[in-house]
Parts: sequence; structure tokens; C-alpha cells
Amino acid sequence: MKALKYDANGLLTGVAQDADSGQVLMVAMMNAEAVAATLQTGKAHFWSRSRKKLWMKGETSGNILDVQAVKVDCDGDALLLLVKTRGPACHTGNVSCFYTDLDEDYVKPIV
Amino acid sequence: MKALKYDANGLLTGVAQDADSGQVLMVAMMNAEAVAATLQTGKAHFWSRSRKKLWMKGETSGNILDVQAVKVDCDGDALLLLVKTRGPACHTGNVSCFYTDLDEDYVKPIV
Repeated sequence: MKALKYDANGLLTGVAQDADSGQVLMVAMMNAEAVAATLQTGKAHFWSRSRKKLWMKGETSGNILDVQAVKVDCDGDALLLLVKTRGPACHTGNVSCFYTDLDEDYVKPIV
Repeated sequence: MKALKYDANGLLTGVAQDADSGQVLMVAMMNAEAVAATLQTGKAHFWSRSRKKLWMKGETSGNILDVQAVKVDCDGDALLLLVKTRGPACHTGNVSCFYTDLDEDYVKPIV
């Protein structure tokens, strides 16, 4: 029996990667319910910490992520979802949520 | 002033992706110190929750991840590190930590 390793809040990290382009699209948390729903439906589901609810990515926008494969990492606390997109993955309209370079403005201490 | 969004434990998610192959290599947590060390040295640093210490990936194995670029996601709580590898990223000797398919054994309820 293999087990996923959820944290104290019952969550693990989900990373969605475009199965075709290889682009990393988004990172979001998943609880056991989100993992099960993703596998059962073939559509990426996550757990919203702010809204405290299960959500299917694209349930509002239509930009569902169709899951081709799911990989688990060596310590069982992160999942890699290889997906096909139906539109931009980011709610901003960008293809990926990672559209911003981390520059020094982000790490400069506030003085 | 832009800000990264750390969780209640002062952590955010770091995803390392091979800048050449596009392969997602590993996921690990980063605190502010790990982010700063990564940017300052150009080598991926993370925060070990189990050992409660900052670590440079490869400090023991030599399989350092040389960081080419860092992207931040739309809500500021995840970083994508585009890296060059010097060897397998996973401590198991696999190129990536995501070498296992998530199968039903992982999600079957224990009865």
C-alpha cells in the first residue's frame, strides 16, 4: 500500500504542466478529495485555501485542464499533472500563471 | 513594492524545471532566506521542513541546480526555477523526483 503524504492541513502540492509544450502552468493545493476527483473525472481539481472548497479548474472560465497523466514525487507530497489545455490556464488570461520574472523588487527588504 | 506571499509557516512552493528539457525535476518549500540565497548565489536553495534548516540542493551530492531564471506566479505564492542540472535532481538517482505514475494503489481507501 503506497500512500500520499498530506501535510498537517491535509494538503499536498499540485503542479500542472502542459503535456504538449512542457510549460508549467500553475501550482495549487490538493486534498484527498481533489486527488480523487481529478483521477475520477480526468479534469484537474484543487482545494482552495481561501474559499475552503473543492474546485474544478475551469468550472467558471471553461478553461478546464484535461489530465493525461499524474506523476507522484519520491516522497509522495507533490503531484505533477500532465494536462491538455482548452484556453489560458491563468485567470489573468496568460497561458501560465508564471508570467512574471522575480526581480529584486520582490526581495528587497522594506526599510 | 511587490511582495511574495508566504504561508503561515513562512513558506512558499518552489518548482524546479530543467531549462533545456522542460522536465519538472522537483518541488520543495522555500522561505525568505531560501529565496534570497537562491537569487544571491544562482544556486537553488530550499527550506527543509523535516530538518528545519536551509539547504542548498546538491550540497551533499554535488548535483547543484544552477538557476537561469526565476518566475513568480500570479498570486505570489509559488516560484518556478528554471535550472541547469549537473546530475540527477532526485536523491534516488532519477533525473526527476516525478518518476512514479500515480496509480489506484495510492488512492484506494484502506478498508
